[in-house]
Amino acid sequence: MSGGDEFTIIRGLMAPLAHHPGARRLADDGAVLSAPSGMDLAVTKDMMVEGVHFLPDDPADLVARKLLRANLSDLAAMGAEPCGYLLGLASDGRRQRPWLEDFAHGLARDQEEYGISLLGGDTVASEGGLLTLSITAFGEVPGGMSFARDMAREGDVVAVTGTIGDAALGLLVRTGALHGLGNAVETRLVSRYRLPQPRVSSGVALRRVVHGAIDISDGLLADAAHLATASRLAIELAVEAIPLSEDVRCAIRRDPALRDRTLTGGDDYELLVTLSPDDVVCALAIAGQSGVPLAVIGRCHRGSGLTLLDGQGEPLEITDTGWRHSVLADGC
Amino acid sequence: MSGGDEFTIIRGLMAPLAHHPGARRLADDGAVLSAPSGMDLAVTKDMMVEGVHFLPDDPADLVARKLLRANLSDLAAMGAEPCGYLLGLASDGRRQRPWLEDFAHGLARDQEEYGISLLGGDTVASEGGLLTLSITAFGEVPGGMSFARDMAREGDVVAVTGTIGDAALGLLVRTGALHGLGNAVETRLVSRYRLPQPRVSSGVALRRVVHGAIDISDGLLADAAHLATASRLAIELAVEAIPLSEDVRCAIRRDPALRDRTLTGGDDYELLVTLSPDDVVCALAIAGQSGVPLAVIGRCHRGSGLTLLDGQGEPLEITDTGWRHSVLADGC
Repeated sequence: MSGGDEFTIIRGLMAPLAHHPGARRLADDGAVLSAPSGMDLAVTKDMMVEGVHFLPDDPADLVARKLLRANLSDLAAMGAEPCGYLLGLASDGRRQRPWLEDFAHGLARDQEEYGISLLGGDTVASEGGLLTLSITAFGEVPGGMSFARDMAREGDVVAVTGTIGDAALGLLVRTGALHGLGNAVETRLVSRYRLPQPRVSSGVALRRVVHGAIDISDGLLADAAHLATASRLAIELAVEAIPLSEDVRCAIRRDPALRDRTLTGGDDYELLVTLSPDDVVCALAIAGQSGVPLAVIGRCHRGSGLTLLDGQGEPLEITDTGWRHSVLADGC
Repeated sequence: MSGGDEFTIIRGLMAPLAHHPGARRLADDGAVLSAPSGMDLAVTKDMMVEGVHFLPDDPADLVARKLLRANLSDLAAMGAEPCGYLLGLASDGRRQRPWLEDFAHGLARDQEEYGISLLGGDTVASEGGLLTLSITAFGEVPGGMSFARDMAREGDVVAVTGTIGDAALGLLVRTGALHGLGNAVETRLVSRYRLPQPRVSSGVALRRVVHGAIDISDGLLADAAHLATASRLAIELAVEAIPLSEDVRCAIRRDPALRDRTLTGGDDYELLVTLSPDDVVCALAIAGQSGVPLAVIGRCHRGSGLTLLDGQGEPLEITDTGWRHSVLADGC
């Protein structure tokens, strides 16, 4: 399957990105991967559509990097070390060379940052259609050491990397719904929205201790509920323990209603993990050393659903847009 | 990333297809694959867009199977035995349950036929967009035994599986441009167009002898030229040796101009392979046993480009739409 000039340009721009020997410099549609003995291969696939997941005037290099990083975040949530990816691109041929060059440049930057290679893919014409992008990413993980959202155990402690809510408030800044925080704060928030920081090193470093894991893309509350449902457990989270950056604290001080948004807004790309209570100190130490802090925020219990506790240990009711006082089982 | 009701339906329909243990019944976005020791993993990705690669009123089960089979054909051209696939689906939410059920049913049928499993994937909303489908397929091949389009060697014999041109004429029947061949012939031709028969068993059976290989999706002439270019060789093909089915012969007898179309029409999903002259008899025997015949149709030489020879060994000029008398180097 091939299209017009745009695809000749794409092929020319993409071939130098395919330095993995299995990619054969894109001579083939496919690629051949040799997993080192004893290693499993983790695979994940994410799609992005123009107008839904990115806007036509978003910088092309950031569109490329955000898609790639969303996939790397999925790999991180499996404890896998990324090695390469396949790229699918359906376009109506309207993209000009500068846009495509920026797109390839974004991929090249992140390939270098994460030590990965383009492995192959497909470009097809989509007459009158929106630009649709698809990435399949591959990572290696020692046999049997990968983790997943259905692997949390009763009695596990729940912890989260980094900080929650920066990206959600960044989106509000970008759309003009949030302002007056000062240029530096607003820039940092927007940048967390535009360019996720997938917790690849954290996932790899925590391999020995993590049981269940999920990356937070839909929002902390939604993804904690996904973790609980997949593992057939109840999860209790303490609102006051959820780690917030100084920027987010600053925004919430000015408008306390923003706190809900931090828990439901999504695009955090942090890791939500569960651990045996015996391993918590070890995990906190490992995370501290890796430069991305880990914060304990809750516990897994027998039962089902997600419960949020306030500063007095009282349950809060979870709603679509946040929470209020009272309990709700399996709320998301 | 998730959408509305359509995606709830899709999830419900797809989960039973994910029987591979690494897929964890789609609990996760990704999957974990353990390649048996000494095996390489072959990967390939193909996309299909509504209105370009299939029509809105094409039967949904055939849309699913054609996409899956196009990917299996890529794996066959690497000598890989398929094991599973990831499915990406970008839709504007207009698809009704019966269409989605038929789509899932098509996948289920081919999963059984080829012994593969759904491993995971992504479904996203594409507001106002066309239905865009993406499959990443995985196959296993003994370490170092995969082949590719850049692996033909000087002096190799060129051979092709099955018959050429049935699908191209099937498309003409379907669009009404070709008729009067009788119901049985027309039905067989259309069926070759609608439902490719990827040569998975041939690819696996011929592993020990094949050097270079490509699957024929763009047309015999175009893909032979791709093989020549990727391997930095010249390829000579004898027009009279190209295997045609009785149905295609019947159509060409009525209209000799259709012969060009058989060589350029595409969608054959046969394998074009190169072999050492010493291995030809062995390869023909293996193919005969597998039920899909192999026909020797040409040779690889030092140089570049594709040459087509007529019944007298005289070169024919290759054009976009076929060939005429005279030579053209690197014609496609």
